[in-house]
Amino acid sequence: MIQPWEKRKHWVDYDCGFFQVHVHHSASPTTGKEHPFYVLTTRDWTNVVALTPGGKAVLVSQYRHGTGEVSLEIPGGAVDTGELPLAAAKRELREETGYEAREWHLLGSVRPNPAILGNTCFLYLALDAQPTAELDLDEAEELEVSLHPLEEIPGMIRDGRIQHSLVVAAFYFHEIFKRK
Amino acid sequence: MIQPWEKRKHWVDYDCGFFQVHVHHSASPTTGKEHPFYVLTTRDWTNVVALTPGGKAVLVSQYRHGTGEVSLEIPGGAVDTGELPLAAAKRELREETGYEAREWHLLGSVRPNPAILGNTCFLYLALDAQPTAELDLDEAEELEVSLHPLEEIPGMIRDGRIQHSLVVAAFYFHEIFKRK
Repeated sequence: MIQPWEKRKHWVDYDCGFFQVHVHHSASPTTGKEHPFYVLTTRDWTNVVALTPGGKAVLVSQYRHGTGEVSLEIPGGAVDTGELPLAAAKRELREETGYEAREWHLLGSVRPNPAILGNTCFLYLALDAQPTAELDLDEAEELEVSLHPLEEIPGMIRDGRIQHSLVVAAFYFHEIFKRK
Repeated sequence: MIQPWEKRKHWVDYDCGFFQVHVHHSASPTTGKEHPFYVLTTRDWTNVVALTPGGKAVLVSQYRHGTGEVSLEIPGGAVDTGELPLAAAKRELREETGYEAREWHLLGSVRPNPAILGNTCFLYLALDAQPTAELDLDEAEELEVSLHPLEEIPGMIRDGRIQHSLVVAAFYFHEIFKRK
């Protein structure tokens, strides 16, 4: 049975406002030897599989600075301090797409990367999603909304049109959810 | 059509050896205004859905310092400099589980997080995986290998026993792959 490591020393080594890099000096439960580990803390995230009454998924395209490419994704973003994940999901859907939905389900949650990230991404399903408002974007956000038949999504994942791992995870949770 | 932003200034703000934090000052193609973006560079990653001749998935448990929890995952890790992703996948399977496989397929690839990470994770399927050797772990790695019937994996994802987003993505790619 794998045991936790003991964190003996710990400090914040870098902070850019969006995330912090922590150094942990932790000791193996087996050997007692200490090793350094670098981990990032940041807000929890949320994303939304939003479906129109006609069964189309609401996707957003945006330029992503990590990859330096335009990325096709589902709406989502960081959960604000004091905000519930569902409220963040509803807010991000509305702000990024102008859509609101009648029926919401929590599909599940994932750890974006247990090795280096401490946070959680909450995955939601929003049914009966319909356009109700204008987009409400931050100054550094430029998004384009598009609708895609849900049955085309697996092919779009396979052929690389959808590449974001958390978007792939959300669509798999949705498939598993439908099987229940 | 979403256009790329123009990177006007750029520097490395932090480097811990495992990843670097870059600051990009980039200008919107629409407004021309500059904004700062923080992005991480690190090696590409790979992970492996390895199946035994009896149809069981080879999983590994390990303590993960990002979440501070024991995490059940598929084998995987970083691609070394000059190494091909397939070679890294074979190496990680062997080192982390002691298994080797006869038949390999590239299931696809994902971007772990296009917003803040520039790298790619290559997802492989390894068939006819069988134990051939002892584990070969780094000093800071402690792993436990377990076998799980493939048909139980979706339930393990739904109920949170498997939480790593890149592991969830790999199993979805495997389902999509089988449908072809």
